[in-house]
Amino acid sequence: MDKYRRDRADDPGAGVPLAVVRARSTADVQAAVRFAAAHAVPVVPRGAGSGLSGGASAVDGCLVVSTERMADIEVDPVTRTAVVQPGLMNAQVKAAAAEHDLWYPPDPSSYEICSIGGNVATNAGGLCCVKYGVTTDYVLGMTVVLADGSAVTLGGPRLKDVAGLSLTKLFVGSEGTLGIVTEVVLRLIPRQRPPATLVATFATLDDATDTVLAITRQLRPSMLEFMDGPTINAVEDLTKMGLDRTAAAMLVIQSDEPAGHATAECELIAKLCSEHSATEVFHTDDPDEGEAFVVARRSAIPAVERTGTLLLEDVGVPLPQLGALVDGIAAIAADRDLTIAVIAHAGDGNTHPLIVFDPGDADMTERAQTAYGEVMDLALRLGGTITGEHGVGRLKRPWLADYLGPDVLALTHKIKDALDPQGILNPGAGY
Amino acid sequence: MDKYRRDRADDPGAGVPLAVVRARSTADVQAAVRFAAAHAVPVVPRGAGSGLSGGASAVDGCLVVSTERMADIEVDPVTRTAVVQPGLMNAQVKAAAAEHDLWYPPDPSSYEICSIGGNVATNAGGLCCVKYGVTTDYVLGMTVVLADGSAVTLGGPRLKDVAGLSLTKLFVGSEGTLGIVTEVVLRLIPRQRPPATLVATFATLDDATDTVLAITRQLRPSMLEFMDGPTINAVEDLTKMGLDRTAAAMLVIQSDEPAGHATAECELIAKLCSEHSATEVFHTDDPDEGEAFVVARRSAIPAVERTGTLLLEDVGVPLPQLGALVDGIAAIAADRDLTIAVIAHAGDGNTHPLIVFDPGDADMTERAQTAYGEVMDLALRLGGTITGEHGVGRLKRPWLADYLGPDVLALTHKIKDALDPQGILNPGAGY
Repeated sequence: MDKYRRDRADDPGAGVPLAVVRARSTADVQAAVRFAAAHAVPVVPRGAGSGLSGGASAVDGCLVVSTERMADIEVDPVTRTAVVQPGLMNAQVKAAAAEHDLWYPPDPSSYEICSIGGNVATNAGGLCCVKYGVTTDYVLGMTVVLADGSAVTLGGPRLKDVAGLSLTKLFVGSEGTLGIVTEVVLRLIPRQRPPATLVATFATLDDATDTVLAITRQLRPSMLEFMDGPTINAVEDLTKMGLDRTAAAMLVIQSDEPAGHATAECELIAKLCSEHSATEVFHTDDPDEGEAFVVARRSAIPAVERTGTLLLEDVGVPLPQLGALVDGIAAIAADRDLTIAVIAHAGDGNTHPLIVFDPGDADMTERAQTAYGEVMDLALRLGGTITGEHGVGRLKRPWLADYLGPDVLALTHKIKDALDPQGILNPGAGY
Repeated sequence: MDKYRRDRADDPGAGVPLAVVRARSTADVQAAVRFAAAHAVPVVPRGAGSGLSGGASAVDGCLVVSTERMADIEVDPVTRTAVVQPGLMNAQVKAAAAEHDLWYPPDPSSYEICSIGGNVATNAGGLCCVKYGVTTDYVLGMTVVLADGSAVTLGGPRLKDVAGLSLTKLFVGSEGTLGIVTEVVLRLIPRQRPPATLVATFATLDDATDTVLAITRQLRPSMLEFMDGPTINAVEDLTKMGLDRTAAAMLVIQSDEPAGHATAECELIAKLCSEHSATEVFHTDDPDEGEAFVVARRSAIPAVERTGTLLLEDVGVPLPQLGALVDGIAAIAADRDLTIAVIAHAGDGNTHPLIVFDPGDADMTERAQTAYGEVMDLALRLGGTITGEHGVGRLKRPWLADYLGPDVLALTHKIKDALDPQGILNPGAGY
């Protein structure tokens, strides 16, 4: 059972499960939860185990309910919807949609190894969300197994539906604490146009973040990503693609406007980059050439991971605070004598500072953990959130009360207690 | 107090309030709800009173809490958000956003007379939602007064935030049954491009609904509206704009793709219309000329209202069932010897059958009420919903249990009971 104890957050506090249930159906999940409810055994739902906040860390004596074997999909091109089981990878959903010239937009960087069930549980985001929204914007309905083992169907393939409470939306992002999603109805949209891509480098962090604000003030790119110097260097080590190792920051931007207009949008963005002292600006209409930079951006976490163990952050701020957040993180890194590589879905104000440390070095590990908290405290001071798209899981939970405040936490507990009075669903995660 | 007893649904069962509170602030709403909670007095929240399902019908001895005097707005062009009080009209939100070249998309036909608070309470839709989504897609946060009179702030101007449960989304569409929204943070997007407009008429309902499916299968227009023969005639009576009174149906379609591409999209749509035996197809790039047809569509409810009293439906079906729904409604109208004028946000499968009757004619009134239920039953048989965007209110409540089923209803009541144990918030509405 060892490989079911942890997700990608590698939670040192993960427990040892009583058993792992690899469900093949909603009925299997119901049977597991009914058993757990009867015996007051905690249940930890698990998708692909790619979570970055410890939302799927096992707790001692729990049932881990894995949905990895539930991976069917049915696409209906007429309603533009897909009925999907939770174990399917995000990339497989995209591929199945593409067979019908359709598109499921949300695209976590980990889209090849993260499951749609986990995406729904965390309300996952990604790169194109700056224009196309996050997971919840595409979830029309679901089947969910509740804490007593009963299964309910919420919503469905209706594009507008306001009959009753928005329960579907409540379950999205609930991190397995209110129920286990066993099927989901997703909204699809027509295939994305081939994007044009722009890459720009900057000598200072402020030049880059100022450029982000200048762009979002007037344009709506379909991707607006940020990498800082340490990230650029780690990616260059991995890819040898010739990135500028001396740059303080790089932006990777796409426009998916119709042909001609995408180029025009890139030209406008290029102008804004130059006005903000970009050291190099390059743009291309060639989708393959552009994709190379997107792949580079997506490889940032594994690239930085080669330099040490990571503590992964996911803090977000209102856009005007992006510069202060990025500068503040650099100050924390200097203070604590650590490398903190920063990547960001910059257009959303959502950053992923990656704190690099050597777990064999006790002093460094302690400094990394201190910095981990300091980054979240900084985000809170700037009016930001402790998690933009990864979820609270178990690792960010100590900071949640400070973020929500006692009144919202009390409201949250009222709902949790009403739906899971025994508290068996993913205890210790989410809130 | 008489004018605070009913909304536009003109609920014959509306009661007489104990008092009307015209709040000027969150604190005023809190004071009213605290009083109500202490004395177990029901509270009926009220926006502009433009609701079409009786969600704001007074109940005997209630406090009506009106937010009409809370109408401030602050637009932040950098974060592209607006902080809005609930009494502001939807049109005023759009106007304030437009001053900064920004756009708040959701556009109920009643946008000039419906408040943003009511829009949030019902998760209102509109015409552009086929491309741009509904109210919930634009609500980033809110301040809401709970059943005990406490006020909580949920979410905020962060474009991605998954810390804690999605409480903001739960409150959107809850029809004042979980709390009273006193401030809302809305996401704005860049101003819409001037759309191109296409109008097509058809000799049969099936030709028109088949065309809708052919369009949505491959394109993503920014508007895809349907009017049937009785509606066309009522609108022509009002506007004298020269609509074809002999047509069985008319589609009003817009594309807001960039210049050139909008025309190309209209040409493609024109071809699809012709392939489905359209009797006339016309399209224009002139925004003003196009807007005349949109205004005609928006005037449909008042136009049909001139021919009698209305029972307003809001049924939606999965798109492939649109033809069966529209045909079935025509059959009910024939059976019951009634005029039922049908307008539809066709691209969403969301229809508004308007049942015309004379309240002085007891037999006709009974037939109209029978038909009202039959239309909802028909929608349910076709896998549809009893309300796509107006809300359940009090008038559609008898059909809700059939739609949700006992399990989802029980889940709903658990949440309601947890948040409003005395059941004082908008009793009898929503669910």
